[in-house]
Amino acid sequence: MAGNSFGQLFRITTFGESHGEAIGVIIDGCPAQLPVDLEYIQSELDKRRPGQSKITTQRKESDTVQILSGIFDGKTTGTPIAMLIPNEDQRSKDYSHNVDVFRPSHADYTYQAKYGIRDHRGGGRSSARETAARVAAGAIAKLLLKTQGIDVVAHVSSVGRINAPNIEISDAQEFIDEREKNIVRCADPATAEEMIAHIDAVRKSGDTVGGKVTCFIKNCPVGLGEPVFDKLHADLGKAMLSINAVHGFEYGSGFEGSEMNGSEHNDLFIKNSKGEIMTRTNFSGGIQGGISNGMPIEFRVAFKPVATIMQSQPTVDSKGNEAEISGKGRHDPCVVPRAVPIVEAMAALVIADHWLRNRNSVLS
Amino acid sequence: MAGNSFGQLFRITTFGESHGEAIGVIIDGCPAQLPVDLEYIQSELDKRRPGQSKITTQRKESDTVQILSGIFDGKTTGTPIAMLIPNEDQRSKDYSHNVDVFRPSHADYTYQAKYGIRDHRGGGRSSARETAARVAAGAIAKLLLKTQGIDVVAHVSSVGRINAPNIEISDAQEFIDEREKNIVRCADPATAEEMIAHIDAVRKSGDTVGGKVTCFIKNCPVGLGEPVFDKLHADLGKAMLSINAVHGFEYGSGFEGSEMNGSEHNDLFIKNSKGEIMTRTNFSGGIQGGISNGMPIEFRVAFKPVATIMQSQPTVDSKGNEAEISGKGRHDPCVVPRAVPIVEAMAALVIADHWLRNRNSVLS
Amino acid sequence: MAGNSFGQLFRITTFGESHGEAIGVIIDGCPAQLPVDLEYIQSELDKRRPGQSKITTQRKESDTVQILSGIFDGKTTGTPIAMLIPNEDQRSKDYSHNVDVFRPSHADYTYQAKYGIRDHRGGGRSSARETAARVAAGAIAKLLLKTQGIDVVAHVSSVGRINAPNIEISDAQEFIDEREKNIVRCADPATAEEMIAHIDAVRKSGDTVGGKVTCFIKNCPVGLGEPVFDKLHADLGKAMLSINAVHGFEYGSGFEGSEMNGSEHNDLFIKNSKGEIMTRTNFSGGIQGGISNGMPIEFRVAFKPVATIMQSQPTVDSKGNEAEISGKGRHDPCVVPRAVPIVEAMAALVIADHWLRNRNSVLS
Amino acid sequence: MAGNSFGQLFRITTFGESHGEAIGVIIDGCPAQLPVDLEYIQSELDKRRPGQSKITTQRKESDTVQILSGIFDGKTTGTPIAMLIPNEDQRSKDYSHNVDVFRPSHADYTYQAKYGIRDHRGGGRSSARETAARVAAGAIAKLLLKTQGIDVVAHVSSVGRINAPNIEISDAQEFIDEREKNIVRCADPATAEEMIAHIDAVRKSGDTVGGKVTCFIKNCPVGLGEPVFDKLHADLGKAMLSINAVHGFEYGSGFEGSEMNGSEHNDLFIKNSKGEIMTRTNFSGGIQGGISNGMPIEFRVAFKPVATIMQSQPTVDSKGNEAEISGKGRHDPCVVPRAVPIVEAMAALVIADHWLRNRNSVLS
Repeated sequence: MAGNSFGQLFRITTFGESHGEAIGVIIDGCPAQLPVDLEYIQSELDKRRPGQSKITTQRKESDTVQILSGIFDGKTTGTPIAMLIPNEDQRSKDYSHNVDVFRPSHADYTYQAKYGIRDHRGGGRSSARETAARVAAGAIAKLLLKTQGIDVVAHVSSVGRINAPNIEISDAQEFIDEREKNIVRCADPATAEEMIAHIDAVRKSGDTVGGKVTCFIKNCPVGLGEPVFDKLHADLGKAMLSINAVHGFEYGSGFEGSEMNGSEHNDLFIKNSKGEIMTRTNFSGGIQGGISNGMPIEFRVAFKPVATIMQSQPTVDSKGNEAEISGKGRHDPCVVPRAVPIVEAMAALVIADHWLRNRNSVLS
Repeated sequence: MAGNSFGQLFRITTFGESHGEAIGVIIDGCPAQLPVDLEYIQSELDKRRPGQSKITTQRKESDTVQILSGIFDGKTTGTPIAMLIPNEDQRSKDYSHNVDVFRPSHADYTYQAKYGIRDHRGGGRSSARETAARVAAGAIAKLLLKTQGIDVVAHVSSVGRINAPNIEISDAQEFIDEREKNIVRCADPATAEEMIAHIDAVRKSGDTVGGKVTCFIKNCPVGLGEPVFDKLHADLGKAMLSINAVHGFEYGSGFEGSEMNGSEHNDLFIKNSKGEIMTRTNFSGGIQGGISNGMPIEFRVAFKPVATIMQSQPTVDSKGNEAEISGKGRHDPCVVPRAVPIVEAMAALVIADHWLRNRNSVLS
Repeated sequence: MAGNSFGQLFRITTFGESHGEAIGVIIDGCPAQLPVDLEYIQSELDKRRPGQSKITTQRKESDTVQILSGIFDGKTTGTPIAMLIPNEDQRSKDYSHNVDVFRPSHADYTYQAKYGIRDHRGGGRSSARETAARVAAGAIAKLLLKTQGIDVVAHVSSVGRINAPNIEISDAQEFIDEREKNIVRCADPATAEEMIAHIDAVRKSGDTVGGKVTCFIKNCPVGLGEPVFDKLHADLGKAMLSINAVHGFEYGSGFEGSEMNGSEHNDLFIKNSKGEIMTRTNFSGGIQGGISNGMPIEFRVAFKPVATIMQSQPTVDSKGNEAEISGKGRHDPCVVPRAVPIVEAMAALVIADHWLRNRNSVLS
Repeated sequence: MAGNSFGQLFRITTFGESHGEAIGVIIDGCPAQLPVDLEYIQSELDKRRPGQSKITTQRKESDTVQILSGIFDGKTTGTPIAMLIPNEDQRSKDYSHNVDVFRPSHADYTYQAKYGIRDHRGGGRSSARETAARVAAGAIAKLLLKTQGIDVVAHVSSVGRINAPNIEISDAQEFIDEREKNIVRCADPATAEEMIAHIDAVRKSGDTVGGKVTCFIKNCPVGLGEPVFDKLHADLGKAMLSINAVHGFEYGSGFEGSEMNGSEHNDLFIKNSKGEIMTRTNFSGGIQGGISNGMPIEFRVAFKPVATIMQSQPTVDSKGNEAEISGKGRHDPCVVPRAVPIVEAMAALVIADHWLRNRNSVLS
């Protein structure tokens, strides 16, 4: 059983290889009558697009999305929404040296071992190019969530050992505007400068570096998440871990929470001035028992450094013989600036799915 | 759409509340002709059982499993395997004070808000008692994996700020034997003593403490994991995050990996003395591109401190009025010693599921 | 991937063998706050129960249902509902002659060939005893549908070549009352007498006979059914074909419709006195384009004759050697009287599932 | 939860509207290394293509398939296979009269009622044009089955009241060759002539007529089908009932079987000259207990007459006002000649799916 679909009620299926004809996605389950703004979808793709700044890969792709079905008179019709993103700048010959050699910490070896055949050009299906399809689908999920006042926003919270200070979000759009002022997509301007300088230095040395993205979901209604296996944070975690290069996920207090005592960790309930039940602290990260509790949801995602480096490395070929490989093609020195829209897209897909699922929790 | 099933081909569905008649599980998809050792299943449950030591809850449950279907002449028949664990020591009156008051950092509030009704006795469905059903199902998954030589083993790697040193596993059974020599289930004896003393002190102060479990999968064949969403580590992550109290998951280099450069993080391929392809380092944690690469799989799971403390805490009731609550009932001061078999069970379920899924990757 | 679950949002999973400990079912996805009347569930099971009349098997089973989880204070809580029906009258020795011999037109041979192992006692998992679990789950689906005013009713419309006249249902309860006045469950009293006499004669000759059940769904709202694969009639058809001994399904005009011209078959739209859109005729059987149109849904299900006959028949054993077999045990001469509650249960499960699914069709 | 996917392990998702940009399909789960013959896929589409003869619609579509992903060096790679069929001859203005009027026995009314919005051009998503995507996917399923020697073949067995005699298939290719000699796709030449004359007469009178397709699966291995809900015939039935205009499904003895006695209906086991177990008769239609038994699988599918007739009919508009409608556009007088490849495609998809599922039935 293959694994190219995600979500239960708001369900996406992606297809396509890095250097094939096109990549794309089908959304099945988007409710009818949602107005769809094509420019918004494209603007989301533009944030993930290669070649957008000096600290991203120089591959040139316009990533222009085409909608093939499911939308009529500017609105969803309840039928499957198919979106296509043609591949344009396929310098496949850049990859001819990879046909028979396994790049370290890439998926070349495991795909070959699993399937006995692989499209070696640019990683084929294992390329992060596939995530463009996710961003397109996530944009529609975001439009759905916006009708409910729910915002999903993320930023780069660390690059290597450079960490941004904790941030409170009062207005989602302001946060995004601030973040988009710099090419590393960190909402703290001072840290952003440091990060950019560091990535640039790493790039010049032919190396790469990892980082973290922090994501916030604002105005998430109480009640999303399905015990016991489809807990909201479990589905968020799976969504994030399915993104290329992700090695870790934590929400609320996360790994640090495991070092705390219960008496400091417990989030005490209070009634706020509007008479709503909320908690004083938010170590729970907006989720209790796998169900959203109305507080802001917050989680962090750890990305390993990009595996393709511009240095020579020893490896083996498909026969196990020693070989030498050095990075060609066009690659990112650090993945997190382009990962921000991907993290948001996957989070939006999870929340949209659980919002639909929760509508059947109670007989009414 | 409810979420009480897990897995695709080796699929479990659990049911039951903490203080109802019974909890249980159905396994659908276990291949026929697997010999099933009932004593082994019971021995796994005994590791999760309450009341097993001074550092666990004193609730007395024998957790005796009954098999209702799916096994004939000591072997699986390919039909659903139903297992039942009756509840015995249900001091429901211990929970009468909870009817209308929300315990901090529990699921009382979110279940009430989501469903408008809840079985308040001992947390009802949100109780970690449900995980006994997972351990029973996981034991059968382990038996399936043993026929393939695959071992899934875990231990407590930290309690609060006390961390065990990194451990290499040469023999899985020896590792388990060593771990079972102490009640905290840490494979390093010196650290175990420290941990036990710390938990005992925390317990006496009426408090609780968090911790971490590290899990290893040995002899996992190459090729398990289904791109692009059902990556092996994504499903492991979801499995772990679905366990009560888990706030974080990382595999391989994990969060630390996000601080590294590509040139140090890349796992270089080599041919070992048997002519097999392997890697010098294992920052990939045995998984590349979401597919197992034959190296040991390693991941870490962070558990928050238990929410029920034996101290008085302010909270609110269902009407939002201020209230006071203090822990009654019988609770664990630290959840990780009993979490070890749960982590192993969920990991075994994921690996069994993906082992079956991978059998259809190639036409043959 | 095993196939013991049915439904997407209102999802059941059954387990158990004919002569094992128990059979049972888990419902996952029933909305919270549905009042559950245990006596109603039992009364539905009583209609399927063996030994209820001279024209059914004489096996004695009280089929007493136990609810293990998911209901609190008489209402569903949104958590899985587990129901257990212990097996009581297991004369397994009646089946010792079947260990190694394949009964004609039973599942003995195919189960043995597929799994290499089988519980031969009374058909094991392939026994129609499994349908008791479906009836219990279907009873809860019916309770859910009753809150929406939807009725699912069926009766025996033919036994062998004896056919009941077409029937119009004005009131569902009256229809059921009339049907329950005779042991064959045909709503036309005169035909019922003929059917009973025929079954009795067939039984005395050691033979069996087939028949048909016709099912009606009244007050089904417009809009149920999900194009393009999960059309309402496609899911009803699968549900019916999954019942033991069913060989055919048709809805609306059915097979006869294939002989008609479009000009006579088209259901012309009209506005009724309440201003509602309806159709003059109902060759569509209440479903157009796979979606309910508000007219009564009507379908027919064909059951083959029971395979176990009280006559000697030649067959082969597991080694392919010639053998002789004659029916022992306690069996039905005609399955349709007991099939009526099963057909209703499966239809109710489909409608409940699609009612939940349809609640997400439109953004609102 | 939407319903545009079919199958579990060999899973397809279709998209597209009759008069949109394109229709298409994604296959997820096709094993790697299957050689794919593009000409074969196209030849299957050509059999379903409009405009192929005087007894089909005159809409001109080349139905040229494009493969976007999943195939490399002429073989499947284990990644999703996306196929696109652009729409060419979209005379949408032919449908402008339908914007606000509901065509009798079409899906106009139910789509509008369910979604509150619909692409009215040519039926939009409800058009049988969607089945071209199924035929493309089914062609790949057939290629998979051919590697196992399994053949899926169908023909038109009745048009209106004209019935072909029963046919035995010795060689699948010969059967297809014979069938393709006439435009109605009936393997009996004499009956074919009658059918063609009848359809032509019906067409000239501005009317339409229904018919039946009979399908055979040859060399299906023993063991396919998953009890208890995913019985092989239950999934075949759902597949067929999901095809536009289908009102009935029966397999083996079908509806006639319900009129028989057990003593005549039972299929007695014998050992054939090769020592294989088979049955003397085949009232079971190749399936017992929901599992294939190695005998030929045979089933029949009933299609209602096409709803669009070239005659004036009274109807209502979206406000319930009386209206008049007469068929415009280009339509089939009888759907069954073009339904033959669709029936085969859906059957091939079911068998491919169950062939993969059955590979995990036994531990080995």
